[in-house]
Amino acid sequence: MSQQMSCKELMKVLGLGAVSFVLGVEWLNWLKRRLRDSRGPLKEVLFFPSPQVCVEHLFIRHKHFPCACPLPHGVETSFSRLLVHLLSARVSLDLCVFSFSHMELSRAILLLHKRGVVVRVVTDRDYMTITGSQIGALRKAGICVRHEMSSAVHMHHKFALVDSRKLITGSLNWTLTAVQSNKENVMVTEEPELVGPYQQEFQKLWEANDPANHISQYTNGQLNIKTCKDK
Amino acid sequence: MSQQMSCKELMKVLGLGAVSFVLGVEWLNWLKRRLRDSRGPLKEVLFFPSPQVCVEHLFIRHKHFPCACPLPHGVETSFSRLLVHLLSARVSLDLCVFSFSHMELSRAILLLHKRGVVVRVVTDRDYMTITGSQIGALRKAGICVRHEMSSAVHMHHKFALVDSRKLITGSLNWTLTAVQSNKENVMVTEEPELVGPYQQEFQKLWEANDPANHISQYTNGQLNIKTCKDK
Repeated sequence: MSQQMSCKELMKVLGLGAVSFVLGVEWLNWLKRRLRDSRGPLKEVLFFPSPQVCVEHLFIRHKHFPCACPLPHGVETSFSRLLVHLLSARVSLDLCVFSFSHMELSRAILLLHKRGVVVRVVTDRDYMTITGSQIGALRKAGICVRHEMSSAVHMHHKFALVDSRKLITGSLNWTLTAVQSNKENVMVTEEPELVGPYQQEFQKLWEANDPANHISQYTNGQLNIKTCKDK
Repeated sequence: MSQQMSCKELMKVLGLGAVSFVLGVEWLNWLKRRLRDSRGPLKEVLFFPSPQVCVEHLFIRHKHFPCACPLPHGVETSFSRLLVHLLSARVSLDLCVFSFSHMELSRAILLLHKRGVVVRVVTDRDYMTITGSQIGALRKAGICVRHEMSSAVHMHHKFALVDSRKLITGSLNWTLTAVQSNKENVMVTEEPELVGPYQQEFQKLWEANDPANHISQYTNGQLNIKTCKDK
């Protein structure tokens, strides 16, 4: 009986030991993860000008797309990284950009719209109508675009929010000159402390520039509010 | 003797217990700090336009500076926060800015220079000579300014590095319109993963635009390279 008891006790001790060991290992793993994660979320910096390379494979989902263009292939650049981040959108893209005339960036936005991503664009009033602006093409495709209502003020931001969790911001306007010639910077981050304020700013500008609140400006019919439904 | 031994042993146990307790508390505090620090270093976002307020107290170190100007006093704004961050420089300020005509920002840079902070400025070639540009005033004071050498390219960055550890970057040019009228953003961070690449970019631009490497461009004597000593 005494031997049976001591066996039971031994089993208890072994069981408790095993549970303690497993819990200890789990706790150490959790601690390791927390300490490793203290580096924080994605932070990437891109500098421009970016050399011209083929980015066709980013638009076409086939693995072995045989592109015959004369540009270098299989090369990663600041611009291709920017495209990768934009095209990673699955749910929404909120874009706040002063000047938008870059054809490939426009193609990326149109592709996201086609894929069902909810795209919202806030842009500058004057720059939306300059030669080469892609704003018209976006509107034509049904993307909702709003512009700064005041003619005395420039909407000078250049940031995008991918799925409300990835911020792309910097000095880069969405033009060919900016991408291929100028000295520019773009930062990509998923740091919530940075993404949050930009998301709030976007929402603020989106609501402030709702054409429904500025009907008087549309009496001459020059500006199109038909495609600007609140989403 | 046996009582004396057990007293000694008791002292040992108590001593070891106290050491273990102190070490345990210290370790817990370290762990607490690490977990709390996992939020990471400074991250601040400023949006513009910024309302006009008195910022005189940021330039004058007297605690109770009696400013009689008609602007609101004791109000913190995006612009005053920007000034606070700039004026926190103790060793160096590396500034890379496309357009610089804001008088108070110029005053801040001149004040830092006067305090012995090593200021280096890289700016755009075309915009450095526009009406109201403060670049001339900086050069006159002996601050080393370099500009983008290529006339076909814009140096479109708008970032500053304070003491090589604080990055100030965004869409904001250093002009009165940008600060007081435009929709702009500025991010301030001490995140080393973000500060590092910008510091490298500054150094790259600083060296690439060293006038000593572009003597042929100065044969007509239009541009002044006298104040551009490498620091």
